[in-house]
Amino acid sequence: MNLKEFASRLELSQTTVSRALSGYPEVKQSTREKVLRAALELGYRPNTSALGLATGRVGAIGIVLKGGGEFGPHTSEFMGGLGNRLQKEEIDILVSTVDSTEAELTAYRRLAASKRVDAVVLHSPYIDDPRVELLTSLRLPFIVHGRPQAEGAFGWLDIDNFGAVHQATRHLLDLGHRRIAFLNGYRGRIFAEHRQDGYQTALTDYGLPLDPALAGNGEFTDEMGFRLMQGFLKLPDRPTAVVAGSMMSALGAMRAIRIEGLKVGEDISLIAHDDVFPYISPENLVPTLSTTRSSIRAAGARIAEMLLELLQGKPAESLREVWPVELVVRRSTAAAP
Amino acid sequence: MNLKEFASRLELSQTTVSRALSGYPEVKQSTREKVLRAALELGYRPNTSALGLATGRVGAIGIVLKGGGEFGPHTSEFMGGLGNRLQKEEIDILVSTVDSTEAELTAYRRLAASKRVDAVVLHSPYIDDPRVELLTSLRLPFIVHGRPQAEGAFGWLDIDNFGAVHQATRHLLDLGHRRIAFLNGYRGRIFAEHRQDGYQTALTDYGLPLDPALAGNGEFTDEMGFRLMQGFLKLPDRPTAVVAGSMMSALGAMRAIRIEGLKVGEDISLIAHDDVFPYISPENLVPTLSTTRSSIRAAGARIAEMLLELLQGKPAESLREVWPVELVVRRSTAAAP
Repeated sequence: MNLKEFASRLELSQTTVSRALSGYPEVKQSTREKVLRAALELGYRPNTSALGLATGRVGAIGIVLKGGGEFGPHTSEFMGGLGNRLQKEEIDILVSTVDSTEAELTAYRRLAASKRVDAVVLHSPYIDDPRVELLTSLRLPFIVHGRPQAEGAFGWLDIDNFGAVHQATRHLLDLGHRRIAFLNGYRGRIFAEHRQDGYQTALTDYGLPLDPALAGNGEFTDEMGFRLMQGFLKLPDRPTAVVAGSMMSALGAMRAIRIEGLKVGEDISLIAHDDVFPYISPENLVPTLSTTRSSIRAAGARIAEMLLELLQGKPAESLREVWPVELVVRRSTAAAP
Repeated sequence: MNLKEFASRLELSQTTVSRALSGYPEVKQSTREKVLRAALELGYRPNTSALGLATGRVGAIGIVLKGGGEFGPHTSEFMGGLGNRLQKEEIDILVSTVDSTEAELTAYRRLAASKRVDAVVLHSPYIDDPRVELLTSLRLPFIVHGRPQAEGAFGWLDIDNFGAVHQATRHLLDLGHRRIAFLNGYRGRIFAEHRQDGYQTALTDYGLPLDPALAGNGEFTDEMGFRLMQGFLKLPDRPTAVVAGSMMSALGAMRAIRIEGLKVGEDISLIAHDDVFPYISPENLVPTLSTTRSSIRAAGARIAEMLLELLQGKPAESLREVWPVELVVRRSTAAAP
């Protein structure tokens, strides 16, 4: 009797039977006992070395990160969500570190050739991103965190970056602000392009032109927020409001505003995108910070779920989600002075 | 001719030969060519499926993290350093997520049984830590990030936590401060115990008693620093100085001080331990923050190196390092008011 026949006698999936026989804790105790008893009764003996083959899985999800900048607070929160969900299936995360896009492509080839992951998470897609095409040609299943330009048979989860910045900018415009600065990520990344569109569309809604002097780009660090904000404050016609791309850049911007002797929420309104880091909260800042809010940890957990669904055979095209972003108004945004 | 004979003919290690034949980029181009030419000349044909066995490695280092709190800024910086060094050998990091110490022990058993890692990093040892004994009995090579209590045949890398807090507290005492608050990690973790000793020893050096009302413990978050500092400032005999365990808790403490209408570096001196996060720098704070400084990213890179040395057969006992911690005095520490 082979695994297939044995599983069908029990009216269970081959995966469940394999896992029950291997003692995986995510199979219910009662199911494990049932399978073990049936194996004894029916004389079924699993080939232990075939158990991995039976489920057809190695039990790992891959993620490739650039060593310089991608091991940051966003990634660790995202991976926390991913790991929390995957642990229930005893699936690990395999992190490959690379130092260039070329090396990233090589890493995917290596992961596919050595069969050390069942699927990968592709993160932060950019314009003319070669990774989607490569993964497709390697037949390595993947879910994208973000929304690639390219069409194809793959799933993705993205937040509404356009809506987040559009809402934030609209809120400031509604409060009477007309000079609104914008701290964005590097151009070329799709999320930053969507945010740029949101900013620009809100200005256009009000018939306002875009002033390039009020838009800055960079990594989302405290220092980036600090330096760009210092630049904005030196302008002859300085902004009365700022939209910051992250809590980190908002902290830097707040400091630059204070050093200039100005008050956040009075002289300068500030609104930030909050990825919900557990160690830095907008409610705790002084003044409390208005935010567009979306938990990157929740996104990690949902992408883990989508990867599991993909591996269970759900069509990739049905695994696409755009999460709306919530605007939370607190004390850092006020009517234009 | 087998691999061993072939390698000895070339006067190269079996690992180098296997890697050269597999096209690993870390083998020099000239060596790869030499090996390939010799294989042709001598009629040596590698069994490709045996290449992994030849090096005896799976090419992954394991790390087990608790899903709730351990995917934070410290871990991502540490993993960035680890990954940057390991990428040069095409070694990945396998992250297993768990929700309890019990599950962590199960994860190590699983990693050892399924041979999916060559070694693991054990992080943040605590009092009566069962993990060291388990890993030893599983014969899973490991390096500890931190310094376990237990003796044994394993390597570790730690920073001088005692010295860091001792120096910081001494510096404040030398400036005339006598009421010095201390934001520490949870008791029971070895690093927090060492820091506690450093704090206490500095006070004893000056003949001062320890006031339990001035010592607080928790995760190193902005909120922890904020709440504990608010508590300290409500004391009838409030502190004139604070030693904070991290940049995150220092940010919270600074805010609590400002809200109270007090000035950091004038009314209250502040010194923090800085793990050197690239996105939040003590030079950028206002006032600039005095710190005890040690890069957790550099520690990750060095531990990767130690793991490689361990796997190359270097005795674990020779892989033990305590890194001194540098005191950097900036504007947040001044003479007691």
